[in-house]
Amino acid sequence: MKVAKFGGSSVASAAQLQKVANIIISDSERKFVVVSAPGKRHSEDQKVTDLLIELGERSVRNEDYSSVLEALLSRFNDILDELDLTKEIVEEVKDNLLSILQGETVFTHKMDALKATGEDTLAKILSQYLNSLGYKATYVHPQEAGIIVSDEPGRAQVLDESFDHLYNLRGREEIQVIPGFFGYTKDNKLMAFPRGGSDITGSIVAAGVKADLYENFTDVDSVYCVNPKIVQSPQEINELTYKEMRELSYAGFSVFHDEALIPAFKAKIPVSIKNTNHPDKKGTMISATRDITNGPVVGIASDNGFISIYVSKYLMNREKGFGRHLLQILEEEDISFEHAPSGIDDMSVILRENQLTSEKEEIVIQRIKDELKVDTVTIDRDLAMIMIVGEGMNSTIGVTSKASTAFSDAGVNIEMINQGSSEVSMMFGVKAEGLEPAVQSLYKAFFETK
Amino acid sequence: MKVAKFGGSSVASAAQLQKVANIIISDSERKFVVVSAPGKRHSEDQKVTDLLIELGERSVRNEDYSSVLEALLSRFNDILDELDLTKEIVEEVKDNLLSILQGETVFTHKMDALKATGEDTLAKILSQYLNSLGYKATYVHPQEAGIIVSDEPGRAQVLDESFDHLYNLRGREEIQVIPGFFGYTKDNKLMAFPRGGSDITGSIVAAGVKADLYENFTDVDSVYCVNPKIVQSPQEINELTYKEMRELSYAGFSVFHDEALIPAFKAKIPVSIKNTNHPDKKGTMISATRDITNGPVVGIASDNGFISIYVSKYLMNREKGFGRHLLQILEEEDISFEHAPSGIDDMSVILRENQLTSEKEEIVIQRIKDELKVDTVTIDRDLAMIMIVGEGMNSTIGVTSKASTAFSDAGVNIEMINQGSSEVSMMFGVKAEGLEPAVQSLYKAFFETK
Repeated sequence: MKVAKFGGSSVASAAQLQKVANIIISDSERKFVVVSAPGKRHSEDQKVTDLLIELGERSVRNEDYSSVLEALLSRFNDILDELDLTKEIVEEVKDNLLSILQGETVFTHKMDALKATGEDTLAKILSQYLNSLGYKATYVHPQEAGIIVSDEPGRAQVLDESFDHLYNLRGREEIQVIPGFFGYTKDNKLMAFPRGGSDITGSIVAAGVKADLYENFTDVDSVYCVNPKIVQSPQEINELTYKEMRELSYAGFSVFHDEALIPAFKAKIPVSIKNTNHPDKKGTMISATRDITNGPVVGIASDNGFISIYVSKYLMNREKGFGRHLLQILEEEDISFEHAPSGIDDMSVILRENQLTSEKEEIVIQRIKDELKVDTVTIDRDLAMIMIVGEGMNSTIGVTSKASTAFSDAGVNIEMINQGSSEVSMMFGVKAEGLEPAVQSLYKAFFETK
Repeated sequence: MKVAKFGGSSVASAAQLQKVANIIISDSERKFVVVSAPGKRHSEDQKVTDLLIELGERSVRNEDYSSVLEALLSRFNDILDELDLTKEIVEEVKDNLLSILQGETVFTHKMDALKATGEDTLAKILSQYLNSLGYKATYVHPQEAGIIVSDEPGRAQVLDESFDHLYNLRGREEIQVIPGFFGYTKDNKLMAFPRGGSDITGSIVAAGVKADLYENFTDVDSVYCVNPKIVQSPQEINELTYKEMRELSYAGFSVFHDEALIPAFKAKIPVSIKNTNHPDKKGTMISATRDITNGPVVGIASDNGFISIYVSKYLMNREKGFGRHLLQILEEEDISFEHAPSGIDDMSVILRENQLTSEKEEIVIQRIKDELKVDTVTIDRDLAMIMIVGEGMNSTIGVTSKASTAFSDAGVNIEMINQGSSEVSMMFGVKAEGLEPAVQSLYKAFFETK
């Protein structure tokens, strides 16, 4: 049994919804469907979620919102028209939106309720459409599905009991269509997940119903082995492990937010990334293990915006606890670090630039000087991290050589390297301006010559 | 003004002492001389220090020690004979040794006093010899020199006040000959430094008198860029920085124990390693900075006997304090680590095998499981570390590429890499059996092609 989640562009129009319906009915295993709100139909279009946000903001500023409401309703109206469906739902949506706008709840709760209308309405329309085609489908409200979340407007977290509730839906005969993006607190308040929330719902449902497969339908054919903004038309990745996905999404891989997939990963459910517009294409399958016959390196991730705190102290390596103390200062100042390569008498701590405000920087530098009595502490800015990722990498001779030759071919100096035993990635730190040439050169070395 | 220290092989015989005297008198800047006890004259010979240890051990076992005493006295007798010196000192040494052996002091103190006789006697002989050649020289007893140490028999540590005392010797006209290896506690007890202790005395004297140069005379022409047991007749290193020396001596560089040089390094006194047998050769100069025009890599160090603790936990990188906590467990179990490379969801901690007894291993593994709730913790054994070292390395494009190509040319897989920003070394972890082929291949890449 499969859970299929369709993203915003997959449900943007009647034409897209026809593709979605075809996908659903072509495989009787697709028993659970999770949908986003309608996205853009063309580049100048507005997403339904953005219209809903505008509606809320105009209302709170006491501005006229009738044109926005009109635009919203006509989006749904057009879809229903083109799919030959009855239109009771448009009036329902209008009444619902007005009652939210005129309600007495606080702004954040109001916004969550408004935004949720997009996914909720689309789920209703899709089940109505499937029924009209002669397939048995039911809209399932997240509260009915038992998706219970924490009381944090706009950034709700799923509570564990939800999974048991969802498991109870398994017995049902009909196709269950569930709106993504929101759940309910124990005391019946609607709460939205963070942005990308339909992915979260899909992943939760897949974990809850113990699906054999979680299908994530988007508008790209697959995950690419490198950022397509840096390398034109890069190779597709057909198979990935969870671990590789984690490492890749760490630095600049943006097909989707990998944290949304955590519930599915934890339940060991394979995830398939597919394109609604080309459902026959292979897509990308993410699971616990993969075939590594086609090379040890599966992808290259890269990101800017890192800094390094460099600390040196004569005889550092004879001071037990030095490294721990340095990391503890960062922890106490609520700073996360990424890596901490060390020499005999020096240590670098690499972190994201946004972790170190100028205020914190001053405190941290002072504490390092006072508590660790270092000889030098400096901050290196404008660093980029490039990760090459692959499960088979560590046991393959020559990967480091190939990678570092690619850096020198591109004329880029490697400032830092980090690779531990049994790890599935190798991290290289370079100056920010070296990112693009280095990634292009790495792509050439690992993918073009295959 | 220079401090010259002569090692055991440099003072093993009258012929060697003639070379030493020639070296001293050839440069009027050589105002302070520190000597070891006479070493081996040929491969079957015994070091005077070893004879003194045997004397003490026989005495404590109530065995006859007359033959050992005889051998000792004849060593000194022969030297005096060949140098045409009077022999009052031989009787003095005999009386002194017998009074130590028959004294009531505890064994460890007795051993320190016995061993110190070697350096002490040689210092007296050398100043006598310099006088006989018409040069003004004085033997200076360490207590007179003000070398004050902690009360730790066999592993005394110099106390800071010694440096001020030594500075007062600067005004003296004559060449000051000081025995190495021992000092005195505040309450006048003789205490020996750890093995290699004459190097310690030399370095302390150089720092105390604020010498322009500390010359360390040995029996090798220079420090080599790689272990001569792994590569035959390797290149000499003519210039090294303190930092490079530190990194090189960390893993298997054994010309001398680098910690003996700490007092000189801290006082920023340049150190020259020279050969008593070829004093005109350039030797190796160790100072704060060096000319890096002749290549960014200065040497390759390597050592066996490392292990890696590998820890993985899904979503590790979202747990603030994970790395700190792991290092803290090791610290609390009194375990030093060398490096800690990390991925997104895993971390390796590299340490010397002798740090982890099987008892401690069990405790550490259990604590990591209990306190960090990791998914996996494993121990990788039989690892070797190879360091390539050089101040200019970090800013030179292509070093990593050259190095890692050398590994793959040798068919050796790189298990771990560690290099931080601004550091002067790059660490590679390999399986123990890969050490020799990898080092040979690195030597070829960085030194033979120059």
